[in-house]
Amino acid sequence: MAFQRVAIVGLGLIGSSIARAVGERLPHVAVTGHDASAEVRTLARELGLCDTIADDAAAAAVDADLVILAVPVGRMADAAASIAPGLKAGAIISDVGSSKAGVADALAKALPDHIVIPAHPVAGTENSGPAAGFATLFDSRWCIVTPGAGAPGEAVAAVTGFWQALGARVETMDAAHHDMVLAVTSHLPHLIAYTIVGTASELEEVTESEVIKYSAGGFRDFTRIAASDPVMWRDVFLANKEAVLATLQRFNEDLTALQQAIRRGDGAKLEDWFTRTRAIRRSIIEQGQDDAAPDFGRKH
Amino acid sequence: MAFQRVAIVGLGLIGSSIARAVGERLPHVAVTGHDASAEVRTLARELGLCDTIADDAAAAAVDADLVILAVPVGRMADAAASIAPGLKAGAIISDVGSSKAGVADALAKALPDHIVIPAHPVAGTENSGPAAGFATLFDSRWCIVTPGAGAPGEAVAAVTGFWQALGARVETMDAAHHDMVLAVTSHLPHLIAYTIVGTASELEEVTESEVIKYSAGGFRDFTRIAASDPVMWRDVFLANKEAVLATLQRFNEDLTALQQAIRRGDGAKLEDWFTRTRAIRRSIIEQGQDDAAPDFGRKH
Repeated sequence: MAFQRVAIVGLGLIGSSIARAVGERLPHVAVTGHDASAEVRTLARELGLCDTIADDAAAAAVDADLVILAVPVGRMADAAASIAPGLKAGAIISDVGSSKAGVADALAKALPDHIVIPAHPVAGTENSGPAAGFATLFDSRWCIVTPGAGAPGEAVAAVTGFWQALGARVETMDAAHHDMVLAVTSHLPHLIAYTIVGTASELEEVTESEVIKYSAGGFRDFTRIAASDPVMWRDVFLANKEAVLATLQRFNEDLTALQQAIRRGDGAKLEDWFTRTRAIRRSIIEQGQDDAAPDFGRKH
Repeated sequence: MAFQRVAIVGLGLIGSSIARAVGERLPHVAVTGHDASAEVRTLARELGLCDTIADDAAAAAVDADLVILAVPVGRMADAAASIAPGLKAGAIISDVGSSKAGVADALAKALPDHIVIPAHPVAGTENSGPAAGFATLFDSRWCIVTPGAGAPGEAVAAVTGFWQALGARVETMDAAHHDMVLAVTSHLPHLIAYTIVGTASELEEVTESEVIKYSAGGFRDFTRIAASDPVMWRDVFLANKEAVLATLQRFNEDLTALQQAIRRGDGAKLEDWFTRTRAIRRSIIEQGQDDAAPDFGRKH
């Protein structure tokens, strides 16, 4: 089962990247798009992102074999309801949300008569909006598909094939496990980055201009992900609350232990910890999930 | 006063980058180098890093107008003592340590009869060792010079001119203020990155291989600085304990507030916080302290 017609609802960074990737990699597939914002729709038309940009979601979804919801996770239920009138029998509904258990429930509830195959491409940048997307965003990145217990194997295979065609590697996972894995690899890092960037900008002893000026000492690495879309991330933390709070608890325990080591002058404990973390970086580079260029290949 | 002969003690990332930068930008200056490790000295000779690599520190410092100590901050006192026998009258001693008040004291104590002008180039990568250095490391980065109250203006100007010749911008600052600024912009970010990378690699619910596989969701940005030299960073936290613990306290307060907002489902508070942090990123890019390329310009 290969898709002939794909609809994308939500044309931000991810939605617009899917549109571009389909245009390049699957040129025979017709793509319709919709975004709730008139401004985004206008921009999408100017950018030539899809074959058609529809003014309402139901019109975009009419006749599509695959509808991908690429909206903040807090808006998935509404987006699903809005496409319902246009869906043809047998259409597959998927999404790109960063949390999956809650989204899967919301989609199943809003579209009880349709096949829902939730997915999450683990890819992105700190930029937002339709102009920020690009066709190669998913190359070599993982897309996690979290089909429910009753999902037809053929539909799972079709969604898997779609993401592979866009350059991604695909893994299938239970939604609850996805949410725990992503809490660690994505949600907690974002929360910590947002926190530290906020903390640094509000100290009395150090001015914001000093923080910016001397950010090359390490701080700037945190600012990239702390520049990610605020609404998207608000929704992720609300949707994946339990897993985020659980991993945060573990982080706090470890931070307290290192804080204590500093206070006590326990250099051996610090050195031991800092030595172990180096190995993780090496593995990430070896497995092609980051660039080996020093300093992220920044120009010097 | 321009330097004719510069000695570099410690040929890791920073020391070897200074050697290369002097070779390119100040070709008339003679450079001698020394490292406590015989292995590093051999490698430095193979790389042609300096005009001469001396087997002991005092020999490297003989006749130098400027001696730069580029060793972990915990070893500054010993390094200063080791060069004392070779120093000529009027030689200026500087360093590149990431904490300054303690280092300034240690150098003044070890070399009471010499001019000490501490400095800190705020530049680096996650890589270590003599092969990791490069001549353009300091381009457009800030170098903070922290002269003591009695430092001769001519010596401060000479050290300033030296760093400017290597491509850096120079700022003069009180050592205690430097230590607070760097605690925020560099030491706390490193501590947090080390913590989270350690936390993520030791969870029961999520395997290390999953953490690595899905690191593109944000986690990998933290692994870069958590791959920095363990001994250097152990020493920084021990040397700048008070300022690090003070900023960590502020970070913990903010993290607790965001944790509470997540637990209570306070989306407005989260969105407000995440919106403010975006502006910081923009300023860092505008001021040339980071690259505007999305995702650090990683290849896709």
